[in-house]
Amino acid sequence: MNEHFRPVALEHASRLINHGPTVLVTSAAGGRRNVMAAAWSMPVEFTPPRIAVVIDKNTWTRELVMASGAFGLCIPGAGLADLTYAVGSASGRDDDKFMRHGIVATVGAVLGVPLIEAGCAAWLECRLIREPHAEEAYDTCFAEVVAAAADERIFAQGHWSVREDNQPLHTIHHLGGGNFARAGSVIRAKSP
Amino acid sequence: MNEHFRPVALEHASRLINHGPTVLVTSAAGGRRNVMAAAWSMPVEFTPPRIAVVIDKNTWTRELVMASGAFGLCIPGAGLADLTYAVGSASGRDDDKFMRHGIVATVGAVLGVPLIEAGCAAWLECRLIREPHAEEAYDTCFAEVVAAAADERIFAQGHWSVREDNQPLHTIHHLGGGNFARAGSVIRAKSP
Repeated sequence: MNEHFRPVALEHASRLINHGPTVLVTSAAGGRRNVMAAAWSMPVEFTPPRIAVVIDKNTWTRELVMASGAFGLCIPGAGLADLTYAVGSASGRDDDKFMRHGIVATVGAVLGVPLIEAGCAAWLECRLIREPHAEEAYDTCFAEVVAAAADERIFAQGHWSVREDNQPLHTIHHLGGGNFARAGSVIRAKSP
Repeated sequence: MNEHFRPVALEHASRLINHGPTVLVTSAAGGRRNVMAAAWSMPVEFTPPRIAVVIDKNTWTRELVMASGAFGLCIPGAGLADLTYAVGSASGRDDDKFMRHGIVATVGAVLGVPLIEAGCAAWLECRLIREPHAEEAYDTCFAEVVAAAADERIFAQGHWSVREDNQPLHTIHHLGGGNFARAGSVIRAKSP
């Protein structure tokens, strides 16, 4: 872990993607690895923390995830918008996108998936829950989060802290065509 | 439709929730109706446009959706943050939240679901696709979008246009506890 990353309690893990950020899906199997961007993910349960993510059946990532039964979700900060768009625009079937883009990855302690910390706000290690029908009909993969960590400069004690001074770690939300909305200013709703 | 709402072509409908906004789920059956907030939704397919949304099996909304086979997703703008938190914090089982909060709703032309336009950036009329296992195991409801419309001041010709002058319509993304990140500034990623 890099110096700013701290473990996130599992009961808080779903909060990391509660607000719909675009994520990087990381995977590895048989000596190969990959990273792709995904705008379509969501939590489905707080405890145990479970998530769903759409991974097209034609992607190299899908093959690696089915082979390994695991994947990582890494949450890129605004400083990684170009990289996120780049790894979402080309396949890693023929070469290693980590090498191509100079991405440093650690290896998850629980499931062994590649995890990206530099420039990311957080990551989650996810164990696939096999659901053949949802995978086939909707490309929707369900998973349980078994470990998570976040950069304490933007997520600490189970809460996001979005501030002017941590803009490069603000999450990004893909509007389409390489345009991302940055989740910047925070609105505190009135207590009902 | 209010004066600023325009139909959205179905092939562009998934873009309305591509970036993970918190939504209002609307429903009606047997002369009753309801609205709740949901942070957990995502597209699962562009064409035909299909989405998934988590609706807890203990909610009044879930009962109405199962009875009618339909629901609406309305995308609140930043000006509706208080309302979004309020309708996400109390049940509508015992009274009508539209009445309680003075929400004006139209009736969807295709499925008859309540739809909110004032203060919202867009809405989608969704026909439930029955998936009993996913509904039971993950509270995940799949649906096909059969109609959509958006406020042309923020979404037009199939694209979001997030600007300084339309801040009240910027989408909101729930961080937890009534704190929403507003999807404000746009980052245009370099073409890879």
